[in-house]
Amino acid sequence: MGIIVQKYGGSSVADIEKIKHVAEKVTNTQKKGNKVVVVVSAMGKTTDNLINLAKQIHKNPPTREMDLLLSTGEIVSVALLCMAIENLGFEAEGLPGFLAGIRTDNIHTKARIRTIDTRRILEELKKDKIVVVAGFQGISPEDNITTLGRGGSDLTAIAIAGALKAEICEIYTDVPGVFTADPNIVPEARIIPVISYKEMLEMASAGAKVMQSRAVEFAQKYHIPFVVKSTFIENGGTMVTEVDFKEGAVVSSVTLDEKQAKITFFHVPDRPGVAARIFGALGEANINVDIIVQNVSTSGYTDLSFTVNIAEIERAFEISQNIGKELGCKSVTSDNEIAKVTVIGLGMMNHPGVAARMFSALARAGINIEMISTSEIKISCIVRKKDGQKALKTVHQEFIK
Amino acid sequence: MGIIVQKYGGSSVADIEKIKHVAEKVTNTQKKGNKVVVVVSAMGKTTDNLINLAKQIHKNPPTREMDLLLSTGEIVSVALLCMAIENLGFEAEGLPGFLAGIRTDNIHTKARIRTIDTRRILEELKKDKIVVVAGFQGISPEDNITTLGRGGSDLTAIAIAGALKAEICEIYTDVPGVFTADPNIVPEARIIPVISYKEMLEMASAGAKVMQSRAVEFAQKYHIPFVVKSTFIENGGTMVTEVDFKEGAVVSSVTLDEKQAKITFFHVPDRPGVAARIFGALGEANINVDIIVQNVSTSGYTDLSFTVNIAEIERAFEISQNIGKELGCKSVTSDNEIAKVTVIGLGMMNHPGVAARMFSALARAGINIEMISTSEIKISCIVRKKDGQKALKTVHQEFIK
Repeated sequence: MGIIVQKYGGSSVADIEKIKHVAEKVTNTQKKGNKVVVVVSAMGKTTDNLINLAKQIHKNPPTREMDLLLSTGEIVSVALLCMAIENLGFEAEGLPGFLAGIRTDNIHTKARIRTIDTRRILEELKKDKIVVVAGFQGISPEDNITTLGRGGSDLTAIAIAGALKAEICEIYTDVPGVFTADPNIVPEARIIPVISYKEMLEMASAGAKVMQSRAVEFAQKYHIPFVVKSTFIENGGTMVTEVDFKEGAVVSSVTLDEKQAKITFFHVPDRPGVAARIFGALGEANINVDIIVQNVSTSGYTDLSFTVNIAEIERAFEISQNIGKELGCKSVTSDNEIAKVTVIGLGMMNHPGVAARMFSALARAGINIEMISTSEIKISCIVRKKDGQKALKTVHQEFIK
Repeated sequence: MGIIVQKYGGSSVADIEKIKHVAEKVTNTQKKGNKVVVVVSAMGKTTDNLINLAKQIHKNPPTREMDLLLSTGEIVSVALLCMAIENLGFEAEGLPGFLAGIRTDNIHTKARIRTIDTRRILEELKKDKIVVVAGFQGISPEDNITTLGRGGSDLTAIAIAGALKAEICEIYTDVPGVFTADPNIVPEARIIPVISYKEMLEMASAGAKVMQSRAVEFAQKYHIPFVVKSTFIENGGTMVTEVDFKEGAVVSSVTLDEKQAKITFFHVPDRPGVAARIFGALGEANINVDIIVQNVSTSGYTDLSFTVNIAEIERAFEISQNIGKELGCKSVTSDNEIAKVTVIGLGMMNHPGVAARMFSALARAGINIEMISTSEIKISCIVRKKDGQKALKTVHQEFIK
């Protein structure tokens, strides 16, 4: 008999009625002859409320205690879901992360899973119980409660599925699957039935809000197939798995990221060590740099631009200005009014014309491209922020519909 | 250096400001050169809110999951208090019950503490940390979270104090100590500075709401002295300890219990096995009987009365009516309009006149006594409910002021 791991996010267990609905889905899955492990997040806004309480007490709450605090949110969901399952006449066993054998490192608030000791889960499954595990948490080698950071419950589900060699891991959420583009902007966007880990990862880093990359990376590393689908709609869903080449569609999805900002160093001396100086300093300050573009050098000088998340632009700009002076640049500027449009698809590797089609589609729509960055399976263009949504629609129409 | 264990109840950590106040009390205690272990309850109404959530899902929530659910309330208090302590520049270590080494039996929702493995607490105290432990919870031999029932945090504090051989256990609450009578009814009631375990136990069973008897019994069994005092007032407090004989006061306190009800069997055949039949049936139904009075037998028949908690009177009456028929009684009646007045004092054992003084004081006040029950250190009288408060004032005046 196969094991199915199901994960329900905070919006799926936001209130009593929704928890009862999840209990029905879970027990129906068992009725069909499966062994079921369920991973749940905290109810709705619980985590935000707890963070708010902590901030009223301490401006910068100690991370160890923060983990202890936040871990309670998922445990409440576990207990209530178990009660709802038992209310339907089924047996359930609720386990906080540490009782489910989830051992992590000791990096509080963003711990990494090290091992999963599946003995307790397997023991309860043997008794025909539905096992409900608190997502997002584990225990450190020093026996302290840890949490896995944003999106941690997805990671819990995928890691448990891997450790149990589950048939499938189902990630239930409030959208019916992974779309070819954000349907709020591109109404004709469609659900992608099958997508590769690589494409999902590019989508996550290109600004699609489906899943955090850590969970997808983990699934890819350990070859754990999973499905993203809606808690509230029966059909649909996107299967994420190993796909090496797809017939047909070259581009699987297009994304828009409006949370980018750009810094440019004008007239930088073009000598070894300059890039290392700039990006070394940003790295030390823990600022993630996304796209980097450097123009060809003319008479020993060059222009260098890069993008960062808009939340980090002020710190990045301050550091950049200091380095600019040190290097003798003409000027350093920052620009918040940009957006990043990305097309993603495994097929691209074998279809060299994709970049050209994307650029000319944008040109026909009168949209100027400011920066370009490519990888084997994606092409990103930086455009003016005001052109972002139009650019997304344009490339979606070009490649998908 | 001595260890002090402090326990703060739900009303002492009901909001952010109160938690900050507790953090100050705790750090002041450390500043004076003590090693400090703090036990906390859930914030204000948290436990009631969680129970309410559970009842919306399951009429009779499974106890194992109930424990998992309720245990989160204390953990939230632990995390927030640690943050407040660290905000004052001190180091804290927060521990859920299972990490504090509190092992219980597996009777969910009213587990008993079996052992306390103090290694982790001692380790953290050695690092000069203030150790904050979640009250009311532990872990069972099967590795499930358990809770200790109402008043469980007092028990946690006293048990930890015993295991650590602490100098003193301080139970902080919203009253400034144990009073000679309920000050809401008897304005001239005073705080008792020192009282024996035995008297505290009689007070608990006589209806005083200071502390659950389980915690007091535990303290008595393991000779753990403790103080009951207010979180919000610096001075006062009542020391509870081994006192074998007290000079001076014969009676230490008087109490009123208005939550009693009475059942009477009229004209019961006076033969062996009758009392066993009645109280055996009530025991099987888990109904606690308080006072039992049987009149002298006249011509082979007697009248038999007993009291139970008013919450159980309906069930007790139904059982009693059936047994009454079986035994051939003339009638069985129930009466909710009673109250129990009790005087408590170790000194009584050596002062035989106390009962007589109590009865004549009540007689002078025109209050009729319906039932009497005595032990070595207490005398209880059942009176009409409408006379209860007057009776309490009368005996307080007679013995204490």
